[in-house]
Amino acid sequence: MYCIFCEIIARREPARVHYEDEDVIVFENRLHWTPIMLLVVPKKHLNQKELWADLGKVGRVAVELGEKLCPNGFRILSNFGHDAMQSQHHAHVHVLGGMHLGPYV
Amino acid sequence: MYCIFCEIIARREPARVHYEDEDVIVFENRLHWTPIMLLVVPKKHLNQKELWADLGKVGRVAVELGEKLCPNGFRILSNFGHDAMQSQHHAHVHVLGGMHLGPYV
Repeated sequence: MYCIFCEIIARREPARVHYEDEDVIVFENRLHWTPIMLLVVPKKHLNQKELWADLGKVGRVAVELGEKLCPNGFRILSNFGHDAMQSQHHAHVHVLGGMHLGPYV
Repeated sequence: MYCIFCEIIARREPARVHYEDEDVIVFENRLHWTPIMLLVVPKKHLNQKELWADLGKVGRVAVELGEKLCPNGFRILSNFGHDAMQSQHHAHVHVLGGMHLGPYV
């Protein structure tokens, strides 16, 4: 099944990549709702529950990028299912910042 | 230094507790911005970066509670610093759901 994140990881789709190692890739979310809007993605095609069973390095990388790019603060979030507007099956964590984010609902 | 989360963990302040084990406690956020609005909190007084260095069980518990209480979906998020409106030093992860949450900014 076609997965845009797997295509980006395989470099068959373009993305602005901010970080990459053997397990994790970080690239810009094309939505650009906030000045910094990154996706932290395990290279393995996990679902959200599988990723969050042991977030590990994905969490560390999210915080490192947030601190580096958003010195005034940032928000890490992850959406599960319809009510949260999850649009990609491939597990991912958002990092948002670069502006005052306001309340989180 | 006074910490409301440490006071709740010590049962010196009231809270509606949804889950507790030796490492983690989950209680309702008094803000009640969404029908389900939980705080998943390590019992040890860590800061956000210390928690997110190895999210581990806190992530698993957040997903388990989200799935149980929000069958149509939920959002997990964590705020770092001023721009994200972080108000408590003691590390914590929010679980939001029980309604259509809309965009996440």
